[in-house]
Amino acid sequence: MNNIYAIIMAGGSGTRFWPLSRKRTPKQVLTIQGDNSMLQETISRLKELVSLEMTYIVTNKQQMNVITQQLPGLSKQNYIIEPVPRNTAPCIGLAALHIHNIDPDGIMIVLPADHLVKNFDRFHEVVRTGIEVVEKYNPLVTIGIPPTRPETGYGYIQFEQSDKDLPDNVYSVKTFAEKPNQETAELFVKSGNFYWNSGIFIWRASRILSEIEERLPDQFHQLQRIKDAIGAPNYQQVLSNYFKRIRPISIDYGVMEVTSTPIFMIEGNFGWSDVGSWDELYRIAGKNTDGNVFTGEVATIDAQNNYIYSPDQLTAIIGLNNLLVVNTPTATLICPLDRAQDVKEIVEKLNKEKKTRYL
Amino acid sequence: MNNIYAIIMAGGSGTRFWPLSRKRTPKQVLTIQGDNSMLQETISRLKELVSLEMTYIVTNKQQMNVITQQLPGLSKQNYIIEPVPRNTAPCIGLAALHIHNIDPDGIMIVLPADHLVKNFDRFHEVVRTGIEVVEKYNPLVTIGIPPTRPETGYGYIQFEQSDKDLPDNVYSVKTFAEKPNQETAELFVKSGNFYWNSGIFIWRASRILSEIEERLPDQFHQLQRIKDAIGAPNYQQVLSNYFKRIRPISIDYGVMEVTSTPIFMIEGNFGWSDVGSWDELYRIAGKNTDGNVFTGEVATIDAQNNYIYSPDQLTAIIGLNNLLVVNTPTATLICPLDRAQDVKEIVEKLNKEKKTRYL
Repeated sequence: MNNIYAIIMAGGSGTRFWPLSRKRTPKQVLTIQGDNSMLQETISRLKELVSLEMTYIVTNKQQMNVITQQLPGLSKQNYIIEPVPRNTAPCIGLAALHIHNIDPDGIMIVLPADHLVKNFDRFHEVVRTGIEVVEKYNPLVTIGIPPTRPETGYGYIQFEQSDKDLPDNVYSVKTFAEKPNQETAELFVKSGNFYWNSGIFIWRASRILSEIEERLPDQFHQLQRIKDAIGAPNYQQVLSNYFKRIRPISIDYGVMEVTSTPIFMIEGNFGWSDVGSWDELYRIAGKNTDGNVFTGEVATIDAQNNYIYSPDQLTAIIGLNNLLVVNTPTATLICPLDRAQDVKEIVEKLNKEKKTRYL
Repeated sequence: MNNIYAIIMAGGSGTRFWPLSRKRTPKQVLTIQGDNSMLQETISRLKELVSLEMTYIVTNKQQMNVITQQLPGLSKQNYIIEPVPRNTAPCIGLAALHIHNIDPDGIMIVLPADHLVKNFDRFHEVVRTGIEVVEKYNPLVTIGIPPTRPETGYGYIQFEQSDKDLPDNVYSVKTFAEKPNQETAELFVKSGNFYWNSGIFIWRASRILSEIEERLPDQFHQLQRIKDAIGAPNYQQVLSNYFKRIRPISIDYGVMEVTSTPIFMIEGNFGWSDVGSWDELYRIAGKNTDGNVFTGEVATIDAQNNYIYSPDQLTAIIGLNNLLVVNTPTATLICPLDRAQDVKEIVEKLNKEKKTRYL
């Protein structure tokens, strides 16, 4: 039995939830549903699988303050700080260095801090299956989500039956497909052997490090320098120097799509949502009889199928349907729910116009 | 030459501009256009006609604080306080008592505090014509506005040529018509001899008092009690006792529609607007190339013909047209511009639900 470590990636900026999410309060630290922030929710989902001592958060300096407030029980040693964002491959590589340094046989569960899972029990079963498979075959393991619609915003995993002796819900990965167009997405969903790429992974630290060494030698070179300094008094400076030099690349593009190591996909039928935008949040929320979802004080006349997030002030709506309103004390967003994705353009616009007080 | 007094009616509650207008900050004290409040605008419009010493404000205790702040030059003696709202006939009657008490031959210009006039010069000419006519014939004089659309929200005045020797722009009033339905409004506008009833009047204090005495003897009776106490130490108490007992009635319904005294109407072609609702404000405002009207910080993508009032925070709009947004620190209204009138229903709803902190 190997030790199991959780690596929670919590460095994202989450502009898609503007104006609720801001630079210092990105999506993962927001309480978007229920009573806990998404990060707290992620931690509590893992509790049964991994002790808090073996749970690591990868984040950045800007977010440390709010995250440490949200996780009073987590030791300072369990934070891995990225000096700059370099996408998921360097992020996961950095975390793998730390785990490997503590425990060369350690198994990592890598997962984003800002997803929602409805069924914790099924989630635990799926992850335990993943750990079993890793212990038996030392592969790369990913979790695929059975698609419920032809979503063009996700990558897909094409899978097939494996010739290995695997549990029923574990498949062999054939290919990774990038975000498809609408037509292709519809074909994927129809085919039945394309699942959504959840970005949740299970593997040995040693396995992913040798993958990075083989497929991303350039990045690995910088990571080695950092590894050599772990525990040394100049660690922070070395980290800062070398991490900065790493070229950004995603783990999917840099490793998963190009590796010759077997990849297994486990069916993640645990009510997953990446809550990637306000309209996705509307989709998964409980609705009132008019199809509305309200947070805070809302008054309406002739208003149906709206998502109104207004925790701090009153929002009044007359004669409007399918609308998204996010009302915060300093900024308010109003748009049709099906244009919620375009909030990124507003954020870009404000950035360009240097209206940083709203970002 | 008689002395001219201005009577500005500033007691309205103005729920149609919620959430900008509140109980303590009704429409007339708001800066809805330009740099001055509507009341300040009304005063400055009159400056050339009436000195500040002869300008009287009829209002209530709740609004005194904000009004005196806006009019630092006006003496406390120039305020006439209504203990309770009783519609326009008692309001005008009370003001007439005060003017008559100072100056039995005084002429009153009666006008609401919350209208806008574009052309001050034309306004002055029209009022001066009214004063001349009053001095010559001692009639009731009202100002009619040439209609620019078949508005169903206003009363109309039917007029005809007079057999008297009157200036070109003065007519004899035939009838007052209450707010018409759409079909009737279209007929009125087509006919060319129906003008909008502006609610602006010019007459001798003595004339309107004898009208009230004749047509509203019940109301006149209470007003007499109040008149007898003007200047006495118990005035406030008498006012409070007797004004409360007056049955509410409008000057149009109580006097203008039933009197046998000649009424003259002057054509008020001075760019009048009662600014009765947010959509009227949008109609009269200068628009940008996308047909939008913005106050404050607004960011948009694909947004046309919207009225966004957001002086204190940022409002971001994506993919929406013909929308009204009024964004205040404690409450935000969002509705199609053509449903702006329904804001009253929201106010009623909040009232019913005792959410008075938003009112």
